[in-house]
Amino acid sequence: MVKIAVMGYGVVGSGTVEVFYKNLSGIESKIGDKADIKYILDLRDFKGTPYDDKFIKDFNLILNDPEITVVVEVIGGLNPSYGFVKSLLEAGKSVVTSNKELVAEKGAELLHIAREKKVNFFFEASVGGGIPIIRPLHHCMSANEIDEIAGILNGTTNFILTKMINEGMAFDDALSTAQKLGYAERNPAADVEGHDSCRKICILASLAFGKHVYPKDVYTEGITGVTLEDVQYCNDFGGAVKLIGWASRRGERAAVMVCPAFISSESQLAGVNDVFNAILVRGDATGDVVFYGKGAGKLPTASAVVSDIIMAAKMHNNSKSLYWEDSDKDFVLDLSGLENKFYVRLICKDKTAALKKAEEMWGKLKVLHRDDESENEAAFITAKINERKFREDCAVLSELAEIKGKIRVLDY
Amino acid sequence: MVKIAVMGYGVVGSGTVEVFYKNLSGIESKIGDKADIKYILDLRDFKGTPYDDKFIKDFNLILNDPEITVVVEVIGGLNPSYGFVKSLLEAGKSVVTSNKELVAEKGAELLHIAREKKVNFFFEASVGGGIPIIRPLHHCMSANEIDEIAGILNGTTNFILTKMINEGMAFDDALSTAQKLGYAERNPAADVEGHDSCRKICILASLAFGKHVYPKDVYTEGITGVTLEDVQYCNDFGGAVKLIGWASRRGERAAVMVCPAFISSESQLAGVNDVFNAILVRGDATGDVVFYGKGAGKLPTASAVVSDIIMAAKMHNNSKSLYWEDSDKDFVLDLSGLENKFYVRLICKDKTAALKKAEEMWGKLKVLHRDDESENEAAFITAKINERKFREDCAVLSELAEIKGKIRVLDY
Repeated sequence: MVKIAVMGYGVVGSGTVEVFYKNLSGIESKIGDKADIKYILDLRDFKGTPYDDKFIKDFNLILNDPEITVVVEVIGGLNPSYGFVKSLLEAGKSVVTSNKELVAEKGAELLHIAREKKVNFFFEASVGGGIPIIRPLHHCMSANEIDEIAGILNGTTNFILTKMINEGMAFDDALSTAQKLGYAERNPAADVEGHDSCRKICILASLAFGKHVYPKDVYTEGITGVTLEDVQYCNDFGGAVKLIGWASRRGERAAVMVCPAFISSESQLAGVNDVFNAILVRGDATGDVVFYGKGAGKLPTASAVVSDIIMAAKMHNNSKSLYWEDSDKDFVLDLSGLENKFYVRLICKDKTAALKKAEEMWGKLKVLHRDDESENEAAFITAKINERKFREDCAVLSELAEIKGKIRVLDY
Repeated sequence: MVKIAVMGYGVVGSGTVEVFYKNLSGIESKIGDKADIKYILDLRDFKGTPYDDKFIKDFNLILNDPEITVVVEVIGGLNPSYGFVKSLLEAGKSVVTSNKELVAEKGAELLHIAREKKVNFFFEASVGGGIPIIRPLHHCMSANEIDEIAGILNGTTNFILTKMINEGMAFDDALSTAQKLGYAERNPAADVEGHDSCRKICILASLAFGKHVYPKDVYTEGITGVTLEDVQYCNDFGGAVKLIGWASRRGERAAVMVCPAFISSESQLAGVNDVFNAILVRGDATGDVVFYGKGAGKLPTASAVVSDIIMAAKMHNNSKSLYWEDSDKDFVLDLSGLENKFYVRLICKDKTAALKKAEEMWGKLKVLHRDDESENEAAFITAKINERKFREDCAVLSELAEIKGKIRVLDY
């Protein structure tokens, strides 16, 4: 009999318990053993659930119970989750989590403890909700060198951008619609500023490249600066604006960023709308593989947690699985060395002069148009240009025009 | 040291050897042991490869060598592969294959032997080339009940349909272009008649539903009947014609078919072009998840084979993994009980009378148009209708009009 503890009875926690009991006979046949949830840890009271007898408030009951071999952490945040998970792994218990902050900040350390103790630390639900991505990245593509990852990793921002693109809704209106529908939090910063996407690309990049990528080292730009004008110009470009988490292998180091980007409508990422997520993985042997589905939600995320529970129960005391090392501080490259195409939107003092200057600095421009374009407005796509040079050139150009928008153009 | 044998040195076999040695150090660290290919079995001579000393022509050298624990079967076809694989599993060796015909026809039997002998029989490369699909279906979605699968499973036919849709190329021209580019065989029947897609949906359905779905029980319709007129009407419908392998859970039984279908351009499957494949999996907890990538090709397929080699080497003598049972003969439902919408194209003796009759039988019609539509031509989408009734009604309608096209409309 495998005895499990669930820490946290919020959306994901209650979903996990629900999915677990709904599919228990199938789960047991996959584990090859009977299984049960012995404890549910939550400081709040949940009277009248069918699991009344399982609720506890004292973490030490779990830590000190030798019957418990697999613990699910779905509290979220670093505190107290980090301390809890560390103690559990050190006590020789396998841990399953959906906590992206925990994995993005402390993954290497926790994986190291898990390996030492020959137990497992799994986190399929931390990226892409119910989309299988962590395990396929690790297992199924194990014969590949993964060169690049580009993903729409946050459903809230993708919903907002979809509303802006398809319905011409302004950012603020789209955000409040998302809030009304429960897709965005009252404080939407973690989503719209790109921090959620940043944690997720850190996890994917760490796994793909084998060394920890820390959020603090990743250039992160959200979608609060994206305007309806940008969206309209992107339509003329023949694509859609998406918030992309991006990671690329550069020799022994890595380039990683989160930013809004123009994506050609030919791309499999351009058609990913509403709250859906999609992750493109470029392997040296497989070419591009894309995983698509609901990136959040109670049941999708819970099903990812439960699939990890099954694997942890099957593989307990056999930690040959996920792993990455810690990294030194310059593992992630500064963006300055990268080259990208940029979309730029200007309000010009002298349009002819501004465009001439831009073309001098940035190569042949692809000029874009939109309905209701004002006379002194100009928008274009540059040639590929070094990021640092682009920043410096923008300072020069700003003497001739106000730069109202600049968004990278990524090629997938 | 894990000693491996590769049977068959064609496209996939030589790719497997190439990917194996290219990534050997990474592979060994994932296995947790040294690994080498000891034999390559092929009746043909391959002089001057770096592996000259490994080639053998006698299968029994592999079968009787106790050092060999993992054998790769990439010969293809049922004969001699079936006999070889069966003997190997019975001798306690794990087998990895890319052979969809073998798995679709003999999967239940071979999985049963593997389980008895506590070894593994893996076949990630048999569906979707380098797209991870078999293992994600089994593992990552193990907390789901999988209700439905719909896939673009054959790159050759998808290439032909893409040429017809995007370039207005006729079927025959698109086929010969595919042949010139090496995407289609000189005898293209297995692809264009749908047999290749049929084997693949059988494998996916067997895994998803836990019982063997045999190709002979699956209604299979290829794309040879799809015309440019159909493609044009589908454009007016707002979608694309795709060859779909489809499987749906129906209580304790399954509905499975392969047929061309109108797919709305809103669907993630509609934008899958050229030789790409995509597989949509509908789970009761995850909702729709889509896996997209190159469904064939030397290196993608080889990388799937090598990832199975890694797993087989790690898990040898531990066969808790993939499994499905044999099924009785009526596990797969006859199509007659299903309901679908249909696209129908008519050349009418009396157009008004034909459309009136069609609407009487099939509910409110959505009439479609195309450029250069002839005066006596009519095309429409029916309401949802029982498959058997539709067939019978077509006989009635054919007194008023010649039925030039009928294609199912699937909703994803």
